[in-house]
Amino acid sequence: MSAFEGILPAIVTPMNSDGSFHEEAFRKVMEFNIETGVHGLWIAGGTGESILLSDEENMRIASAAADQAGGRVNNIMHVGAPTTERAARLAEHAARAGVEAICCVPPFFYGRTHHAIAEHYRTVAAAADLPLFVYNLPQSTGVEITPELMRRIQDRVPQLRGLKHSSPVFPNVRNFAAMGLSCLVGNHQLMLPALTIGAVGCVDGPPIIAPEYWVKIWNAYRVGDLQRAETAQDRASRLWEALGACGGEFHSVAKAALSERLGIECGAARPPGTPMTEEQRKALRGIMEEQGLV
Amino acid sequence: MSAFEGILPAIVTPMNSDGSFHEEAFRKVMEFNIETGVHGLWIAGGTGESILLSDEENMRIASAAADQAGGRVNNIMHVGAPTTERAARLAEHAARAGVEAICCVPPFFYGRTHHAIAEHYRTVAAAADLPLFVYNLPQSTGVEITPELMRRIQDRVPQLRGLKHSSPVFPNVRNFAAMGLSCLVGNHQLMLPALTIGAVGCVDGPPIIAPEYWVKIWNAYRVGDLQRAETAQDRASRLWEALGACGGEFHSVAKAALSERLGIECGAARPPGTPMTEEQRKALRGIMEEQGLV
Amino acid sequence: MSAFEGILPAIVTPMNSDGSFHEEAFRKVMEFNIETGVHGLWIAGGTGESILLSDEENMRIASAAADQAGGRVNNIMHVGAPTTERAARLAEHAARAGVEAICCVPPFFYGRTHHAIAEHYRTVAAAADLPLFVYNLPQSTGVEITPELMRRIQDRVPQLRGLKHSSPVFPNVRNFAAMGLSCLVGNHQLMLPALTIGAVGCVDGPPIIAPEYWVKIWNAYRVGDLQRAETAQDRASRLWEALGACGGEFHSVAKAALSERLGIECGAARPPGTPMTEEQRKALRGIMEEQGLV
Amino acid sequence: MSAFEGILPAIVTPMNSDGSFHEEAFRKVMEFNIETGVHGLWIAGGTGESILLSDEENMRIASAAADQAGGRVNNIMHVGAPTTERAARLAEHAARAGVEAICCVPPFFYGRTHHAIAEHYRTVAAAADLPLFVYNLPQSTGVEITPELMRRIQDRVPQLRGLKHSSPVFPNVRNFAAMGLSCLVGNHQLMLPALTIGAVGCVDGPPIIAPEYWVKIWNAYRVGDLQRAETAQDRASRLWEALGACGGEFHSVAKAALSERLGIECGAARPPGTPMTEEQRKALRGIMEEQGLV
Repeated sequence: MSAFEGILPAIVTPMNSDGSFHEEAFRKVMEFNIETGVHGLWIAGGTGESILLSDEENMRIASAAADQAGGRVNNIMHVGAPTTERAARLAEHAARAGVEAICCVPPFFYGRTHHAIAEHYRTVAAAADLPLFVYNLPQSTGVEITPELMRRIQDRVPQLRGLKHSSPVFPNVRNFAAMGLSCLVGNHQLMLPALTIGAVGCVDGPPIIAPEYWVKIWNAYRVGDLQRAETAQDRASRLWEALGACGGEFHSVAKAALSERLGIECGAARPPGTPMTEEQRKALRGIMEEQGLV
Repeated sequence: MSAFEGILPAIVTPMNSDGSFHEEAFRKVMEFNIETGVHGLWIAGGTGESILLSDEENMRIASAAADQAGGRVNNIMHVGAPTTERAARLAEHAARAGVEAICCVPPFFYGRTHHAIAEHYRTVAAAADLPLFVYNLPQSTGVEITPELMRRIQDRVPQLRGLKHSSPVFPNVRNFAAMGLSCLVGNHQLMLPALTIGAVGCVDGPPIIAPEYWVKIWNAYRVGDLQRAETAQDRASRLWEALGACGGEFHSVAKAALSERLGIECGAARPPGTPMTEEQRKALRGIMEEQGLV
Repeated sequence: MSAFEGILPAIVTPMNSDGSFHEEAFRKVMEFNIETGVHGLWIAGGTGESILLSDEENMRIASAAADQAGGRVNNIMHVGAPTTERAARLAEHAARAGVEAICCVPPFFYGRTHHAIAEHYRTVAAAADLPLFVYNLPQSTGVEITPELMRRIQDRVPQLRGLKHSSPVFPNVRNFAAMGLSCLVGNHQLMLPALTIGAVGCVDGPPIIAPEYWVKIWNAYRVGDLQRAETAQDRASRLWEALGACGGEFHSVAKAALSERLGIECGAARPPGTPMTEEQRKALRGIMEEQGLV
Repeated sequence: MSAFEGILPAIVTPMNSDGSFHEEAFRKVMEFNIETGVHGLWIAGGTGESILLSDEENMRIASAAADQAGGRVNNIMHVGAPTTERAARLAEHAARAGVEAICCVPPFFYGRTHHAIAEHYRTVAAAADLPLFVYNLPQSTGVEITPELMRRIQDRVPQLRGLKHSSPVFPNVRNFAAMGLSCLVGNHQLMLPALTIGAVGCVDGPPIIAPEYWVKIWNAYRVGDLQRAETAQDRASRLWEALGACGGEFHSVAKAALSERLGIECGAARPPGTPMTEEQRKALRGIMEEQGLV
């Protein structure tokens, strides 16, 4: 796989009942997505509970992902961490493990200068001989990656290939594309609109539980079938809205939906994330039946 | 004209050198747009210097617009004002003048409850037997029209037909469409993306100076020609970026561009808006020549 | 009166039942405040329903205020308006009417450059030979007057005397004071804290209904009686919290409280402001009795 | 020490040239502050590079702090971490180490419900038999601790004693005090103003390098000497503004200033934090000489 495009679901990190990484379930979720036709996976990112993972867990996940995919799809491994040193060590490991690319949130918690942010990316990228994707997630990091800041990163980081754009500033999809970057839109409801202004794909959490819905958007778009693409986008958007009505926190809902669908328990969100109540789980199962997902 | 859809440029309010309304230039700008194939005009809104106009000016503009168009396109007349009474009076006049619809910003300056906002719309709409468009312009009004607030307005205002959505919350295009509203996206660079998730058209200022660029997006979209629509959107987006490079404030640039293109001086922004400098005007002329607009 | 300092309540604009300006009530509210020992009044500002007033009403209010006070306190008349021309005309009238100073919000609705904002103030100030106070009210205007922007205004506007600082950026009280400006803090609960870092007084709406509470803060502060000043501030803060529990919108509550206290009906908020319900009015009366205000 | 009040500087985490914790320097900074008369220290918080530290480093710091102070001042140890489990483990260790209290930021990176936030605090507090301070630092965590949210925490967490309020919402100082909480204001320029509306002290980074300036504010305030307190606050505010003019990032500047003052190299900010340039360091030394700090 060389082009980073299409639908790349952000995978959850399944956990055992004791909270430890559930590798078997993780591999099963990957396999399900690969077989359904996704073009890549976004691993240990926001949906994967990212910064709640220890470095050791992150490394085990990278290894399992590379091994399971075996080059069939593009694995983009998240290596963001509070310190530059930790992020660089994770990047180095990811390259050794054999993923196709890395991604990284900018420094968070403390406000940093544009200079410091670009230096962070330079050091992290230099630790791995892999394409780098910036992860623009201002609601979590407090940093909006503007085109201006991105230009600074682009000037310093030869490995920069693109970004996941999960910011509310939707018009920047076009601006990043115009800079020669592979822009993966980070909102599953905006996959089609983003493609029409230069995005090359979509990365988001909801597709991990029903990738077929977003694969259809891509396939219709690729052959220029506008009406079918619109219908596919609308169905995909409606699906997740329906599931969301069960209540419950995103990470727990996504894991529970996969547990129902794949028949292997994927656990709950790691605290401070909250598990689903029994009522919520029951409601979710009902909705999935209505939607024909189980 | 019955459907409110397609490209509806927001018209500037041309002014004489003494700052008064320049009706001849206004009519000429309208005629140029109508002949180029626009589907309607958004009058005395944000681009039209709206709340900088006196009520008398607003009424003269409504009358001129209705007379000039003669029903050939959909005129949507802005009637927003600081008090409910003034807005209702403008609405009543607009109906008498013969425009096809009215639009109205929510109360601004003071924060208001959802109840008060809905009441404001109810009173204003009741003053005119015309379809009503809400004008969602949070950067100016401080009020984000959320789907929840819109539902409240929808419950109380039978004349509600749709909205101009100029908010940064792009995903709400889909939500408003799902409520049965005619959503006119308020960002000219997002016309095509918005159409793919349920918008029925676009209202924005830049198209007023070169409506042919946005008419092409609409025409390609209507026949399902995705590639041509994308190309048209990209060209339209680039055009305005090119013009913007002249420096200068939006209202003054738009008027100057029309002056150059139509050969009738449209004046400058009303203070506190600032006029263009001679260098900016010269730069604009140069860019317009490069772009083949003059 | 020369120094602009102490407690300067922001006066409401009483209205008759037909919505017109109720001059007799206005004069009575002024007189009550003057007799209670306030040092000035902030007229036709945010509390006075400012931009909901017509220019003619604004002028009548200025004349009534100057006449009623007769130089006993500092009247600071608000002249802000959507256009520079209207604001300048109001400023000119205010000077002729005989108020002690003018104040002005920055241009609102449309975002303006710092250059345009400073020019607006220059023109408005030049129309009146009076001290000028900038009105920093970002929640209404969308413009935060930063020390940097204020320096630009200070450089161009010789009449600049100070500001009402109603912004949430409290630490700037100190920065404005360090620039030699008379900083009137715009939050009645922060009068004492602001005085300790350089503010010279307080302008806000709640004091208009019970000025004696804030006069006490000032008197204790002036003689360096820290404990008494703290107690007075706490009592004043509690008083308004108690009244606010009646429900109802600020302008209507303030007018109703004055109606109860002074025995002259001051009317309700101008729509889109909402009047109090009968239950709210009854609750307010009860609270005022408990607080010993009636 | 029982009351948590007065001036509690937030201590930096000095580091060796290889980036490891410099315990000797840390103890020296503590001792300098204790001898100067501070009432406590805020350890491994925002100023202490908090979430950039490993859990092992955090624990070493807690042990060193408890040992060095020996009960002479109140050590409030920060135990915030991305997961509830890690935060609870740090809390448990802090109690064993012998600090006087713990503090904790709310869950960050992922938005959490009020329920989840309160549960997080409940679990962390239950791990240590110590008073708990909430750390309200929305610019880093994305969570504003409102009085409403705090009430929820107060209902569930018997160990809750107070908070460090580093939010821009200054008026909440009063509201938290009214809830019976020990409110430590998190802005060193607002120590005196905060005390006048119910705060019991101040926690911030700048005082760590010149605690004598803030001790003076406290001493003057305690004896009700308003004028002396204002002068002391103004001098303290000016001091840090003067030092800040050297350029350079906060953590590096604070460490460098302590290095200069105490004659023991405290290192630089941990990357992605940036070290000072030589010019900045030189400028800092010059300013410190002018200010009489070296």
